[in-house]
Order: sequence, then structure tokens, then C-alpha cells
Amino acid sequence: MERTELNALGEFGLIDRIKSKFTIQNTETVTGIGDDAAVIDMGNQYLLLSTDMLLEGVHFDLSYVPLRHLGYKAVAVNVSDIAAMNGIAKQITVSIGLSNRISVEAVDEIYEGIRFACEDYKVDLIGGDTSSSRSGLVISVTVTGVVDKNKIAYRNGAKANDILCVTGDLGAAYFGLQILEREKQEYMANPNMQPNLEDKSFLVGKQLKPEARADIVHELAEAGVVPTAMIDISDGLASEIIHLSTQSGVGALIFEDKLPIEDITMLTASEFNISPITAALNGGEDYQLLFTIKQTDFEKIKNLSDITPIGYMTEDKAVELVLKSGAKASIKAQGWNHLQ
Amino acid sequence: MERTELNALGEFGLIDRIKSKFTIQNTETVTGIGDDAAVIDMGNQYLLLSTDMLLEGVHFDLSYVPLRHLGYKAVAVNVSDIAAMNGIAKQITVSIGLSNRISVEAVDEIYEGIRFACEDYKVDLIGGDTSSSRSGLVISVTVTGVVDKNKIAYRNGAKANDILCVTGDLGAAYFGLQILEREKQEYMANPNMQPNLEDKSFLVGKQLKPEARADIVHELAEAGVVPTAMIDISDGLASEIIHLSTQSGVGALIFEDKLPIEDITMLTASEFNISPITAALNGGEDYQLLFTIKQTDFEKIKNLSDITPIGYMTEDKAVELVLKSGAKASIKAQGWNHLQ
Repeated sequence: MERTELNALGEFGLIDRIKSKFTIQNTETVTGIGDDAAVIDMGNQYLLLSTDMLLEGVHFDLSYVPLRHLGYKAVAVNVSDIAAMNGIAKQITVSIGLSNRISVEAVDEIYEGIRFACEDYKVDLIGGDTSSSRSGLVISVTVTGVVDKNKIAYRNGAKANDILCVTGDLGAAYFGLQILEREKQEYMANPNMQPNLEDKSFLVGKQLKPEARADIVHELAEAGVVPTAMIDISDGLASEIIHLSTQSGVGALIFEDKLPIEDITMLTASEFNISPITAALNGGEDYQLLFTIKQTDFEKIKNLSDITPIGYMTEDKAVELVLKSGAKASIKAQGWNHLQ
Repeated sequence: MERTELNALGEFGLIDRIKSKFTIQNTETVTGIGDDAAVIDMGNQYLLLSTDMLLEGVHFDLSYVPLRHLGYKAVAVNVSDIAAMNGIAKQITVSIGLSNRISVEAVDEIYEGIRFACEDYKVDLIGGDTSSSRSGLVISVTVTGVVDKNKIAYRNGAKANDILCVTGDLGAAYFGLQILEREKQEYMANPNMQPNLEDKSFLVGKQLKPEARADIVHELAEAGVVPTAMIDISDGLASEIIHLSTQSGVGALIFEDKLPIEDITMLTASEFNISPITAALNGGEDYQLLFTIKQTDFEKIKNLSDITPIGYMTEDKAVELVLKSGAKASIKAQGWNHLQ
């Protein structure tokens, strides 16, 4: 049999290939593959469904990720997908594959993190599957959510001249990971070393314990604003802006000096000799929300502290960054060929 | 930190431990952990949600499981959980962790099996997650289903004197696995050997391509019968009768000479020198439905060809098998301490 390596397709190529072979048979299925969550018509409301799997050695390294944080993160990244549809997360299932390295106490730690996340995001753990694993630890979470039919935000609703906004700050989780990796290397070289992460706790915290921006969904509802399009930033701003623009059939212009990057991220970027803009664009794992609103809604959100307008959508299909110098750079998504 | 091995708890002990630490916060959540599927109130109907994860080396061996069958089975075992609530499966998500042994063509085979199952069971693939895996192949499926509120069948509704019925036949999947394992050993000893599975194709087929009994849900609806309790037989009849009895607070009496076991299963059992009754009770992976009905409903189902009454529920809590000799044996579930 012919053999084509997966890297030749890349993750998005693989998803497109799978999607092309399936058709929708049930009238209740509104949207399948291709947005942050699937959409099912339940009569009065839409039900949202999304799933994410975390695998040891690919998505996390148990040598520096505390199990409690891992449990929390497994829930948060799923809740983030529901928030990205402007929905409210309600229930989760958790399937877990446990290697024989994992003790009952370790399982308790993972579920303690899951429980914290369930409380923070008001979701119920309603089921799952427990299994032994011959290889590493595997955690697969599925989340349900609900959204009023007139409030749902897809990826494809952005129009030219809509304002592009982002929540929170960008690039911190990326440098958190760099720091953890550096400390691990130093520890392996000298096991007596005591890591000192104190002044980097903000960055490390962003990596280890990302928060889903479920709060933003409530803030937007209170402000009376429904985003015209929305997506969560899991793979980096560049990749997500391109998704939003492509699926909406418009372009985007964003401004370097508008990107929300914290001082500590800036400082650490120069320490690692990596451009903070590159980290914001391609670092990933920020789990912030990227969304567009009509210009007429701008007054309603401009005083919300954790939302930053970073540009606007354009008629032509180009996705570009206006540098501080005034020059324009084309935005490309990186890392597409690495399955993650 | 103290270290308790997982085997000290067993799968059901672990699930109870997890369940005890979580509370339900949302009023829409009707039933969480503890039945074949979770139940969510969507107003007019109940939404059902269930999830199952298959891991290489634990649930399947790629040296004899064709990828297409694996994809099919991953969907079927989930659809079976929805059928066990008397519900109709509607949508699935599929998360997959791919080792570098897996080519694009292999992924195509897996999804071809998933597609066949989607067509057979009329479910839509609506989402998922694709990832690389450092270890083996991992497939995690979540399924949604719907059921009318007055037709749902929980595990805990059986009453004394209800008739206990089982669909299809038992024990075949167990011997299918024994045959595949034997052929594998022979092949490893002599790679030139050509396996001859022809006269065992029924048994091997039951193991490799189990069918969810979604058809029974439609048959019962047509007959106007709502089971008082129902469960699917994934771990073996013994384990599932005990679940049903314990959760319903009743006992059960079943009859050896009523157990539906095919001739080829009987023959193969004597070849392997294993009791066919043991295989039926503890073999597992039959994915048949076990359910109870009121005595007054018996007339409505007695002519349905693929449903066999095997006993009845009793006031006292004992779960017993009446042997052909007339002697009674207590039924115990085996394999509980092995996480699978």
C-alpha cells in the first residue's frame, strides 16, 4: 500500500481530508467540523459540543506540569471553545488513560484540578471513561454548552470594516513554556539546582493554568454586544486571524502598537532574544478570544478593561500587520505542519 | 507522598472515588456518572451523552485488528451506550492521537470504518481533535443521542418479577478474541503460516466488528414497550446483571438453559476447554442489550426473534444462575480489578 506521511498533509490538511468524506444526515446538526464547537439545534436553543485531547509527551511534560494544573487546563481549553461561540459551558465528560506510573493519589490530583475548573466555570462532570494506558497519560475532554440562537458567534460572520478585538494579553504562555523548558534542561544538567521561577510566575502561570475567557461572554452580553465572528487563540494570533478572515471571506489589518503584550513578556522576550511580536503572533496557547464587532457597537465595549481593539477587517483578502515604522508585513500562520 | 496502586481500587472503585468528589451545579443536568450515558434536560427531550476511549495495546492489537474495523467499532460501542438508554444516537466527535507509524492511508482506513458506522447508525461526525501521539494510537469518541422523556430507560428501574431479556447471542466475541490471539501466537512462531479463520468467521466478526443494537430500540418502540431498566453488555453478562440488580435494589434469577449461545460458540468453547457459560457470563464485548420489562409487556415482545427472556428479577438481593441440574450458583462479576 502507498504510504504518505502525515506531515505531508499537516493538521489542517488532515482535517479537511476527513471533513470532505462525511456528509450530514440529521436535520438537527447545524454545523459540524470547522468551528470552535459543533452546533446542534435543540429547539429553543443551540447546543454546542467540542472536544480536546491532551497526550503526554505531545501536549504536556509531567516533569514540570503539576497534575492539578493539567486537570484544570484540560477543562479550561474546552470551555474556551464554547466561549468562542459566545456560549455558556454546562457539562463535561473526561476520559482518561492511565499508565502504571500513575498512582491513586496522582489521579486524585488530576481530578482535584478538574474539580476546581468545574467550580470556576460552573460546569458539571457528567461522565467519562477510565482505562489503563500502555503508553503515557491521555486526557480527553468533551464539553457541552448552550447559546441563544440569536447570540451565536461563528468564525465566518466578520464583515469589512468590523473592528477586530482581542481579550487579555498575548505571548505570555509561550515564554512560560520557554522558561519551563530551560529550567528542565538546567535541572537535568544539575539536579541539585533549585529553580527560581518567582519573577516569572506570571508567564509560567499563563502556560500551566490558562483561563478560559467565559467572563468575556457574560461581559459582552451585559454590554448588549453580539460579536459578528469569534474564535479562541489556541494556535497563536496569526493562525486565528487567518482562520477568521478566510472563513469570513474578508481581509484584516492589525497594528503592531495595538497588540496587548505585558511588560514582563517584553522583558523575557529580549532575554530569550525572540521578538515579542513573533511570540504574540505564533506562540499559541494564550486561550484568549479574538472577535469582530460592528463599528456601531464600539462605544459599548470601549471602556471594558480587558478588551483591546487591534485593527479592522478589510474588503480585500490580505491579512497584514502595520509595523510601528508604518511598513506593512503579510501575516502567515506558522507551525501548521506540526500536528498538535 | 503516599502511593496507592490503581489495581487496589479497580475501575469501579476508581469511578466511585471520582464521583464522590463532584457535585452537580446545573439544573439541566439530570443524571451524571453511573449509567450508560449522562442525561441532560433540553426542554422537550432528554439529550444523552456518552464517551469511550480505545487505546492501542489495551483495547486493540493492530497486528490483527484491521483499521477499518477499529474505526467502525469505536463508533459502535458508543452508539451502544445510547441504545442502552433506549435513545437514538445522533452525532459523534472523534479525537485521535496518531503515532508516526500511522500514514495518511492508514488514517483514511480508520475514517472509512467510522464513515460506514455513521451511515449504518445514521449519526453525523461533527467534530474532534487530531494530534500526534508519542505512544500508540488513541481513539476517543463521544456520542450524543436523544430520547423522549417518557421513554428513557435507566439502569435502576427494574422491579421484582420484571422479566429479564437479552438481545442476540452471548460469548461469541470472547472466543473471537481467543482465536485471534491463538493465530497471532502461531504466526509469530511460524511467519509463513496462512491463518485459516473461515469456519470461525462468525466469532472473529463478532470481536472485530461488533454491532450496536440500535435496531432493538426501534423494535421496542414499535412494539410499544419501554424497558423498566436497560444496560449494554460490554463487560459480560454477570457484571451487567449485577449493575442492573444493585442499582435497582432487587435480585435476579437467570436460567442456564435460556442463555442464547450459538452452536459455533459451543463448539469452540469445547475446543478451548472453556465453559461456554463462563464465556457468556464473563467474556465481555458482546455489546448486546440486557433489559427488564413488566410481565404485562411480555406478550408484546415474545415473538421478536432476537430477544430472549433469560430470567426474572426477585425481591431478595441475590443474583443467581439456575443450572441445568436444577442447582443454583451465585453470579459474581469477574475482571473488575483490571482497568479496561
